[in-house]
Amino acid sequence: MTSVSDYLKENYYNHLEELKEFISFQSISTQSKHKNDIGNCSKYVMDLLFKAGLKTEKIETNGNPIIYGEWNGSDILQTLLIYGHYDVQPADSSDLWETSPFEPSFRQGYLFGRGASDNKSQIFLHIKVIEAFLQVHKKLPFNVKFCIEGEEEVGSESLFSIIEEFPDKLRSDIVLISDTSMLGENVPSICTGLRGLLGFEIEVQGPQFDLPSGSFYGGAVQNPIHAIAEIISRLRDNNNKIKVPHFYEDVYSLSEEERLQLVNLPFDDEWLLNQTKVPSLYGESGFSSLERAWIRPTIEVNGIHGGYTSEGGMTVIPSKVIAKLTCRLVPNQNPNKIMEYVEKYIHSMEIDGVNVKVKQTSESSFPYSISQSEESLRFAVEALEDAFDTECHLIKAGGSIPIVAELYKRYNCPIILMGFGLPNGNVHGPNEHFSMDHYNKGLYALSNFYNKFC
Amino acid sequence: MTSVSDYLKENYYNHLEELKEFISFQSISTQSKHKNDIGNCSKYVMDLLFKAGLKTEKIETNGNPIIYGEWNGSDILQTLLIYGHYDVQPADSSDLWETSPFEPSFRQGYLFGRGASDNKSQIFLHIKVIEAFLQVHKKLPFNVKFCIEGEEEVGSESLFSIIEEFPDKLRSDIVLISDTSMLGENVPSICTGLRGLLGFEIEVQGPQFDLPSGSFYGGAVQNPIHAIAEIISRLRDNNNKIKVPHFYEDVYSLSEEERLQLVNLPFDDEWLLNQTKVPSLYGESGFSSLERAWIRPTIEVNGIHGGYTSEGGMTVIPSKVIAKLTCRLVPNQNPNKIMEYVEKYIHSMEIDGVNVKVKQTSESSFPYSISQSEESLRFAVEALEDAFDTECHLIKAGGSIPIVAELYKRYNCPIILMGFGLPNGNVHGPNEHFSMDHYNKGLYALSNFYNKFC
Repeated sequence: MTSVSDYLKENYYNHLEELKEFISFQSISTQSKHKNDIGNCSKYVMDLLFKAGLKTEKIETNGNPIIYGEWNGSDILQTLLIYGHYDVQPADSSDLWETSPFEPSFRQGYLFGRGASDNKSQIFLHIKVIEAFLQVHKKLPFNVKFCIEGEEEVGSESLFSIIEEFPDKLRSDIVLISDTSMLGENVPSICTGLRGLLGFEIEVQGPQFDLPSGSFYGGAVQNPIHAIAEIISRLRDNNNKIKVPHFYEDVYSLSEEERLQLVNLPFDDEWLLNQTKVPSLYGESGFSSLERAWIRPTIEVNGIHGGYTSEGGMTVIPSKVIAKLTCRLVPNQNPNKIMEYVEKYIHSMEIDGVNVKVKQTSESSFPYSISQSEESLRFAVEALEDAFDTECHLIKAGGSIPIVAELYKRYNCPIILMGFGLPNGNVHGPNEHFSMDHYNKGLYALSNFYNKFC
Repeated sequence: MTSVSDYLKENYYNHLEELKEFISFQSISTQSKHKNDIGNCSKYVMDLLFKAGLKTEKIETNGNPIIYGEWNGSDILQTLLIYGHYDVQPADSSDLWETSPFEPSFRQGYLFGRGASDNKSQIFLHIKVIEAFLQVHKKLPFNVKFCIEGEEEVGSESLFSIIEEFPDKLRSDIVLISDTSMLGENVPSICTGLRGLLGFEIEVQGPQFDLPSGSFYGGAVQNPIHAIAEIISRLRDNNNKIKVPHFYEDVYSLSEEERLQLVNLPFDDEWLLNQTKVPSLYGESGFSSLERAWIRPTIEVNGIHGGYTSEGGMTVIPSKVIAKLTCRLVPNQNPNKIMEYVEKYIHSMEIDGVNVKVKQTSESSFPYSISQSEESLRFAVEALEDAFDTECHLIKAGGSIPIVAELYKRYNCPIILMGFGLPNGNVHGPNEHFSMDHYNKGLYALSNFYNKFC
């Protein structure tokens, strides 16, 4: 009889072909024109789960389908929920991609493509290890539920609804998610905290049409771009503290011991400078870079557009400008309260000569953190240390997975964030990639982890 | 023998068809893809001048061709230079145009289309009245030179070069230009001052690629949009005075009498509010709206773009943001000095964590004003009063015609800005239009004006 590890070896190259096909779907949830791609990709995920030996189900929603799969061995076994998502971020700066984002390709030990890291390769690892267990042993040491959704990048609204309507569907004892990064290449790490997210737009409307900046107008009416610049510049102070009143009210302050844990991580600012090529780092005074990115909240303009931006010039006072913003939130901030504070603050600025609108643009997500004393967290650390043959670090992440805080709140169970991404994997950016070394060790680490339940 | 006026009546509808054809050329000088349209349009202008009975010449340049035409009667006659341009601004907000910008159409007494006012109909009036004189009388009461260029909207670089190289080519005793607006519909006005122009871009570069706003980055590196918002917000103070040091140093202050002349014009802020639909007017404190738009300098963002601006959201820290700006300048500001001041000021801000570049984007233009005691100005006032049968006002304009100050400096001759545009003619905006009533009275006014030289 072959072992799990033999099975994975024998099928290694076939699996990689399947993974490439998975990545080739343009399952972009933020753009409605990709509705068909989302549908096709969800069907592909369902096939993967079915081939793995799971009982599968396509859960139709008002948004994108959720693909569900389960293996139910016995009521006395623990139930493990494996969560992932098949939707991806847009990939529009296509000139910056060395190869097409939806034609995945291997180069120098990495797999490149949109979704290569976030989240397709990572959820794929779980599917294949579960498949191996079921093919080899015909059973698992736990009951398993897979939940692979298609709206993670837009706030997981449908999944929230399904959990609300059918709370038992995803009920479990442990949640396992691989959708984060490690601290470095071959530096195994478990993520013990995520920031929350709040998205909103600021729209500043001036004249009904673009006006000439000469004639009777330039100087006599407010320019919406100047108005929005004023608004944005008042969001942070000179120390890069956010000026929205009450913004920091509920922010959890780390203990000295917790701060020390972050300081001792094998991470330095040189890496950050090198990754980003910025002339200097910049952030909230009084905090290290890791603290700024992991345990401090932010307010950030993700995009802005207004007026004439094509080739050459056009001497107009633009009619309108729109900025898209997001806040990253930390325990114990509540995105709903923060949205109120931000809206109230911006309106309190009383910007003359224009109309200012603020509106929330997507479902928000709460921040999350896990207690370091959880047994399953220890299992995960051991599984990773064994696979990578080096110390596993407890880290945090600056990003957000909307559903995590919800699952925690509802099932009160530990959520293990065992991410295999690279810190420089260009998630959400051009040339997103995933390490094949992490892929290989990931298969091993997950096998180890599952075996701990035997 | 028919009169000039009979000739214009007999050929009225044919001329309108020619005008529509003239407007239908997409002779957009700010976008290189329209090079062929520029070429075709310049050829059309040359044909118009030839048909008018002028000796024509296509002056090739490093940029767009300049179309030149002349009728030289005698050395003892005064020489009148008629300047205009066949290039137009882009028309990209096409959903706001009620009819296609390059398919000119008549509606309710107006001619709609890009260039209908700026400057095609206006230069066309001159061509047709000169044509009428030459067809009817076989001569003119002055020597005439036509100079119709194709780079007015991008700074007239080639025309500047030609004047530099062949200073006698355009030498003349009076310059006549119809490229401005009247104060109101059927409110005849002559423009006695123009603002100058200076165009530049601010580019703020942060990380080499868009970064995720989570991960290791959000909070730990500066966001270029926040940086540019800071820069823009520091360009003006709370009273909407420009904060660039030395900016106002050379600004000419109007005498009490000159200010009173502006106050007494038939213009009120209600009109401006109604035209623009802004919630309130806004500008430099201590000045009226007309003063803000005509005799005070401005600094204005014409467009801004950075980060993710498509549908939905994308949680990125953008790599780069660019803003396009222009200053409108007033006598006696020097655009070259102002560019230096602006650059120095922006660099003095020392914005951390990003690289800031400032670069001039087009030829600048000097501001211009004419003495109110010029004889030819009186001729123009009388010609307009006769044609419109009402008082003609001396006004100014907030816009810029780059070549005006240059012609003045070089030939030291009066420049008559006898514009027939509507103040709400949407020059540079969607639904640009020209009044057919002004067109008809314009033919008459120009005939009057030319006759004054007999």
